[in-house]
Amino acid sequence: MKQFVVIGLGRFGLSLAETLYDLGHDVLGIDIDEEIVQNVADSITHAVKADATDENALRALGVRNFDVAVVSIGNDIQASILVTLILKEMGIKYVVAKAQNELHGKVLYKIGADRIVFPERDMGIRVAHNLTLSNILDYIELSPEYSIIEISAISSWFNKSLSQLNMRRKYGLNVIAIKRDGDVIISPNGDDVILKGDVLAVVGQKHDIENMEKHL
Amino acid sequence: MKQFVVIGLGRFGLSLAETLYDLGHDVLGIDIDEEIVQNVADSITHAVKADATDENALRALGVRNFDVAVVSIGNDIQASILVTLILKEMGIKYVVAKAQNELHGKVLYKIGADRIVFPERDMGIRVAHNLTLSNILDYIELSPEYSIIEISAISSWFNKSLSQLNMRRKYGLNVIAIKRDGDVIISPNGDDVILKGDVLAVVGQKHDIENMEKHL
Ligand SMILES: Nc1ncnc2c1ncn2[C@@H]1O[C@H](COP(=O)(O)OP(=O)(O)OP(=O)(O)O)[C@@H](O)[C@H]1O
Ligand SMILES: Nc1ncnc2c1ncn2[C@@H]1O[C@H](COP(=O)(O)OP(=O)(O)OP(=O)(O)O)[C@@H](O)[C@H]1O
Ligand SMILES: [Ca+2]
Ligand SMILES: [Ca+2]
Ligand SMILES: [Ca+2]
Ligand SMILES: [Ca+2]
Repeated sequence: MKQFVVIGLGRFGLSLAETLYDLGHDVLGIDIDEEIVQNVADSITHAVKADATDENALRALGVRNFDVAVVSIGNDIQASILVTLILKEMGIKYVVAKAQNELHGKVLYKIGADRIVFPERDMGIRVAHNLTLSNILDYIELSPEYSIIEISAISSWFNKSLSQLNMRRKYGLNVIAIKRDGDVIISPNGDDVILKGDVLAVVGQKHDIENMEKHL
Repeated sequence: MKQFVVIGLGRFGLSLAETLYDLGHDVLGIDIDEEIVQNVADSITHAVKADATDENALRALGVRNFDVAVVSIGNDIQASILVTLILKEMGIKYVVAKAQNELHGKVLYKIGADRIVFPERDMGIRVAHNLTLSNILDYIELSPEYSIIEISAISSWFNKSLSQLNMRRKYGLNVIAIKRDGDVIISPNGDDVILKGDVLAVVGQKHDIENMEKHL
């Protein structure tokens, strides 16, 4: 069990704090807004109303003893930067900060944040891919190079085996799972046959995935 | 090529609009804020300042002819609901709407939205898993049941083959890729050997993944 402090309980911060708590960790949530603090009181270890730009308030809460701090203040970029700076100066080993844009992210990194997250940007990319073709059901970025798509089998694939389709040679892509009637065949073999209604999870390099999307 | 209209160019809406445009689609962006509209002018097909709750303004922009509309208005829940309603009444086939919370999502669904997205909530869950163990590098939800984790090989795995580790029997999980020195071995075999520094992408049911996380 680790001790986490989450500063800023907007939608991202709240979801993060509640998930950490559900995973069995100790979670202190801090927000400047009284109502938000009251609403979260029962779903994390401890919730406190405080202005996190006030160093003394953070000290009084013993924040320096936490393993990980997450700064999920959004619109008030100045506050987000100031709080990140205070936390690193207090000696917290690992500080994660949410950035509004690239520039904000760079500043946070320079002042010592250990990890920057861009929740809205990343989900915008994911949903955009997802919407472009009606048979692409989901698009997930694994790394700057690799992604996964979930795709409904198109009619020309029906009743063909994976070896016959040979996506590896054609597109440089690998089928990692086939979803069928609520079941999932993980790591299918070359002789597994695609049926109507199947959903395939396919992994590969981004440009190869985009190339395949163009040929669907 | 499809025609998309994105209403509300906050961080999520903007990232989505720019990605759709980069993928080769026609993208009209609408925001009530003049400055936001000016900033996006060069990165999508067309950007217009308008209040999307004004049905006449939407009609004048020819919004009814678009294939897909995305409502990414955030804090103003009332506006988000009203705009979604107007779009569905205009006859737009596919309307995606961003929700602030479960209740907002339910209302959007009831009034006809075809898909609801919760960008902040979903990323909060992803980052929370990611932070809980230093060797879990990423956690990605594939579906309500299945997830992927990226995990740094732990020392007890070094120089063992995948058959020896037998994660399938031990945890019900499958190794779908091994990242090594910038390369990626996709769909590894039972005799592939784990080396120090390897990162494994592992897929399985959520409870099996959480069970494995507990045993690391
Ligand atoms: N100085 C501060 N100290 C503590 N909490 C703060 C401070 N400033 C802002 N917050 C809180 O941070 C939370 C997130 O801020 P805001 O709503 O601006 O971000 P957001 O990026 O729109 O959030 P999300 O998209 O995750 O909902 C809010 O609940 C706000 O009350
Ligand atoms: N009636 C409206 N018509 C058009 N645009 C609107 C309307 N109301 C709000 N918007 C725009 O929607 C955008 C997103 O709204 P807001 O910033 O409240 O959401 P958010 O969830 O915090 O966004 P994000 O987290 O994606 O940055 C803003 O740029 C805002 O100007
Ligand atoms: Ca906001
Ligand atoms: Ca947001
Ligand atoms: Ca789709
Ligand atoms: Ca980690």
